[in-house]
Amino acid sequence: MRRAIATVSLSGMLREKLQAAAAARFDAVEIFENDLLQFPGSPRDVRSICEDLGLGIDLFQPFRDYDAPGATQLARNLDRAERKFDLMQELGTQMILVCSNVQPDAVADPAVLAEQFAQLAERAGRRGMRIAYEALAWGTQVKLWKQAWDVVRRVDHPHLGLALDSFHTLALRDDPTDIAQLPGDKIFFMQLADAPWVATDVLTHSRHYRCFPGQGELEVARFTRAALDAGYDGPLSLEIFNDEFRAAPARSNAVDAMRSLLWLEEQVRLDRAAEAARKPLLAPTRKVALFDPPPPARLDGWSFIEFAVDPAAGVVLAQWLARAGFVRMGRHRSKQVDLYGQGDVRIVLNLEADSFARSHFEAHGPSVCAVALAGADPAVAVARAEALLCPRAIGRIGQNELAIPAVRAPDGSLIYFCGTTQDGHPPFEADFVLDAGVDVAGAFGPGAAVDHLVHAVPAGQVEPWTLFSRAVLGLVPERNVVLHDPYGVIRSREFESADKAVRLAVTMSERENTSVARSVARQRGAGLQQIAVAVPDLVATARRLKALGAPLLPIPDNYYDDVLAKHDVEPGLLAAMRELGILYDREPDGAEFLQLYLLPYEERFHIELVERRGGYAGYGTANAPFRLAAMAQWRDGLPRLAVAA
Amino acid sequence: MRRAIATVSLSGMLREKLQAAAAARFDAVEIFENDLLQFPGSPRDVRSICEDLGLGIDLFQPFRDYDAPGATQLARNLDRAERKFDLMQELGTQMILVCSNVQPDAVADPAVLAEQFAQLAERAGRRGMRIAYEALAWGTQVKLWKQAWDVVRRVDHPHLGLALDSFHTLALRDDPTDIAQLPGDKIFFMQLADAPWVATDVLTHSRHYRCFPGQGELEVARFTRAALDAGYDGPLSLEIFNDEFRAAPARSNAVDAMRSLLWLEEQVRLDRAAEAARKPLLAPTRKVALFDPPPPARLDGWSFIEFAVDPAAGVVLAQWLARAGFVRMGRHRSKQVDLYGQGDVRIVLNLEADSFARSHFEAHGPSVCAVALAGADPAVAVARAEALLCPRAIGRIGQNELAIPAVRAPDGSLIYFCGTTQDGHPPFEADFVLDAGVDVAGAFGPGAAVDHLVHAVPAGQVEPWTLFSRAVLGLVPERNVVLHDPYGVIRSREFESADKAVRLAVTMSERENTSVARSVARQRGAGLQQIAVAVPDLVATARRLKALGAPLLPIPDNYYDDVLAKHDVEPGLLAAMRELGILYDREPDGAEFLQLYLLPYEERFHIELVERRGGYAGYGTANAPFRLAAMAQWRDGLPRLAVAA
Repeated sequence: MRRAIATVSLSGMLREKLQAAAAARFDAVEIFENDLLQFPGSPRDVRSICEDLGLGIDLFQPFRDYDAPGATQLARNLDRAERKFDLMQELGTQMILVCSNVQPDAVADPAVLAEQFAQLAERAGRRGMRIAYEALAWGTQVKLWKQAWDVVRRVDHPHLGLALDSFHTLALRDDPTDIAQLPGDKIFFMQLADAPWVATDVLTHSRHYRCFPGQGELEVARFTRAALDAGYDGPLSLEIFNDEFRAAPARSNAVDAMRSLLWLEEQVRLDRAAEAARKPLLAPTRKVALFDPPPPARLDGWSFIEFAVDPAAGVVLAQWLARAGFVRMGRHRSKQVDLYGQGDVRIVLNLEADSFARSHFEAHGPSVCAVALAGADPAVAVARAEALLCPRAIGRIGQNELAIPAVRAPDGSLIYFCGTTQDGHPPFEADFVLDAGVDVAGAFGPGAAVDHLVHAVPAGQVEPWTLFSRAVLGLVPERNVVLHDPYGVIRSREFESADKAVRLAVTMSERENTSVARSVARQRGAGLQQIAVAVPDLVATARRLKALGAPLLPIPDNYYDDVLAKHDVEPGLLAAMRELGILYDREPDGAEFLQLYLLPYEERFHIELVERRGGYAGYGTANAPFRLAAMAQWRDGLPRLAVAA
Repeated sequence: MRRAIATVSLSGMLREKLQAAAAARFDAVEIFENDLLQFPGSPRDVRSICEDLGLGIDLFQPFRDYDAPGATQLARNLDRAERKFDLMQELGTQMILVCSNVQPDAVADPAVLAEQFAQLAERAGRRGMRIAYEALAWGTQVKLWKQAWDVVRRVDHPHLGLALDSFHTLALRDDPTDIAQLPGDKIFFMQLADAPWVATDVLTHSRHYRCFPGQGELEVARFTRAALDAGYDGPLSLEIFNDEFRAAPARSNAVDAMRSLLWLEEQVRLDRAAEAARKPLLAPTRKVALFDPPPPARLDGWSFIEFAVDPAAGVVLAQWLARAGFVRMGRHRSKQVDLYGQGDVRIVLNLEADSFARSHFEAHGPSVCAVALAGADPAVAVARAEALLCPRAIGRIGQNELAIPAVRAPDGSLIYFCGTTQDGHPPFEADFVLDAGVDVAGAFGPGAAVDHLVHAVPAGQVEPWTLFSRAVLGLVPERNVVLHDPYGVIRSREFESADKAVRLAVTMSERENTSVARSVARQRGAGLQQIAVAVPDLVATARRLKALGAPLLPIPDNYYDDVLAKHDVEPGLLAAMRELGILYDREPDGAEFLQLYLLPYEERFHIELVERRGGYAGYGTANAPFRLAAMAQWRDGLPRLAVAA
């Protein structure tokens, strides 16, 4: 497929936008009119910049409010169109998007509309231009693609066709199925956008909430497939704008855009393949080459978590880990890297000078520079990531050591892909000289394993992580929740593998004094904020941690009075929870969740311990205000941090 | 009236919230349950903190989902209520807010509801407690105050009454009129909140968009008056939460809260007085003492703008002003303060060491430290501001000099109130020794005057400015617009006096690289970003400025091709606009707007020149993308600014 992007999707000035689109390997752009009007040079200059960058200009857009209630206004609008044709000629593009009229006096009668569009098509034809007519979801009269198609069909002119936009159709919950029945050559252009479902009007929805396919909840693949089934073989073009993207760096956003298109093509291909498997006798649909990356690899869980430290910070962090019950298991065979363990949780402290970890430490201070996912086929996982434009990271490997493949996560940290654990030992342990006789059951107890990880990110980074988690890692986006920190709202998005072996949350706060924003500020950009470990018996673990002198987050007594008022909790358990600071939640089906927090390392990251009973599926959202308030209470005892300093 | 605030309205931990409420002179608080659950101390401790602060605890809230489909669940809910009565007893409060049930199995039958609430009232009565029953706008069955009233009426128990919340009624566009007919003693509690009209569902609207009365668009005064007419004489209590307030500093937010309540009382009082004047024979309604500040003073326009500089910055700024056509008119009689003028615009450069201006300079760099409003009665204006909790600022005054009264604006800058200009000379000029023979017509031409000012503020400051502009200055909130900077969205709110003599806009961007955010960052907090001057003939002014070598903001040629395509502009005017960089807008009624921008001083502030033709009412919003892009284009030539550094 030819892959395109509208310049309105990228932030900054036109030249930057074009450079970003070319660098992300787009074939073409749609030139958004305002970008051109703002450009301090001629349309011919824009044309030559695009030529230099190898970018086609596939569309000029938008031309608004064409149809008119009277002849005078129509004549004016035709004049206006001619002026735009002049400009398009200089620009070297042949197609203009005309969107349905949003003025109160827009033409309602399809026959009149057809008559007026026939005139426009005729004018366009004379100039060698093509009109792609789009039904805006908030058009006064024409809102649906079928209405626009009715006009195109009536006019039946080679220079008039349809522009389809997934948002306009799907956001109205209009059905795209019949698009597959259209003559493919009458679909002149395809614009693609996703969006989350938001309770608002469709115009606000479009202006502020569009996102790249895969970041939202619309059935963009289904929509796209219908057009391809119709025989459309023109560009797939992203037209996305939202409040975050308008401020996102154009370069990385363009790469995300391309990643989303590639992923979308894969979804369409898989959908067709699944249907072909179900209905083997059906004639194959017309074909364009769709992106075909390696499939997502099955993931078994988190294999290890690697902290970047220098020798001084390493001592402090090692003490912090020891207080949380971790024991030192050994040292890397060739590097200044220590391994700590507890239950099945593995933590690596990387003290190696002149390494990726050290650069990460210099940029972010003591923080997680890498996490490792376990799975049967690391090579496939990395190949998929690379195919989806995630750069592979290559580190130094000693003789006879494992080459653990890794890719860059959206925040620049690494994600390793390791083989599956065998006999309780993850394969990467082979690179370590393990101390003899170390008991790693620790306070967590045998079988303790990472339940989920939480990344704290700045504004604008949730969407890139969504696409990365979904497209690259093959996780499924789950809940989107709002949490109340005493100093502002926190938003959190959860991602899980289908079998729940891997759980990941991404959390963001635009208010500078929340726990999340302060972790982001401390870590100078983004960073892992929480390691949640599932243990088989949280009360027992908590008692062992307490005996060890672990710094447990104190929870106020009042909280437990309310737990008792709300839930029938067995008095012994309630007393234990009250004593140890364990939080409690119960789902309507009786599934229970116990949570315990250790005090954070500085305000950077912390450990949570959880016990899931009876298949509890969530993350204890109901308890978030209490643990966030308890964190804030603890923090008030700390010296004040100058945020963003 | 007794004035109260719910603790959920303020950010931070409970102790901070209570201290802030007391400092803002609230009489009482509602204790939000989560605030208590998060508090590391007993309910008795909370009670004694409140006693120490002189705060009553007028309500404990909320108690959710009381009514139940079956006897077992009802018994559990009654037990739960008893536990909360225990807690309230310790807390020393007698009233609990019970809100309507939001569970799918909520009771629908009013008779059953009444039967169940009778049981609750009976239990409450035994404990000396009172139940205030509130219809949540998103209650499953009970959504409207009349439904809640139906239950209260049926039960007819002295310990059961209504809680009314302006948001729940007004956001559903439900009519509050009949509230005036209720028995006043059956209204147990009044919660007040305003909100802007937002296209979303009512729950989202409530959770994220509530604001203080006067900051939104709901008829809170009408609602309040209905309850007071019914004879309600309990507390007026603010229950406000939105994403900004959750992060706003509790102290200043509590003062804003009190200001909004005072303003609201005034509106109710004025409404009653207006009715009394219309219907002099009507019996006076029952009375409670309502706040009665001096009325807003009539304002005639902006009198002067004062910049804070030190001697070095003063030289640079004076040169910048000279290039924009300003001439030096004289020096202050006793201070290191220079006066500049052009047309009727007056600019003061304050170089005085050891002054408010110098402290402002030290905190914000070269920036506007004060603006002055002209009007017939400065003393009344200041008295009103003080009554509405804006601290009066007192400066040093020399012998025989005018004492110009001033108050602090929300960003800490000053607003002076000056007398009206007589014979072209504002009264404050009397404090200056004016140079002889200075021609102040300048490039702007005679009659040029400030059209509007624009303050750039950080997130969370638009709402305080809204209340300040409306309540203190008596301006009317006009449009709320979204502007597109190439690097992110900017939001802008406009305020105008009824006769348009005073126009003010407040602008905010959460994206760090927009023109507004960069101005805020440069000015370290907030600051005046734009001085817009209306001139009688903008083309002539632009030519004079060009001849003077004024740094005009260049506008790309492409912009003018589009102006021509859109509007019938006379070719001579179009050519002049193209040559000079004048932007153009036209309203459907033919009113025209011409705009010209001078390049900013650093990225702090700039001058805009406008010409309004035929009663153009707006601010050229349609041109915002072009001038913002042109600013960004200019800025790209500057050394990169480390924002927030």
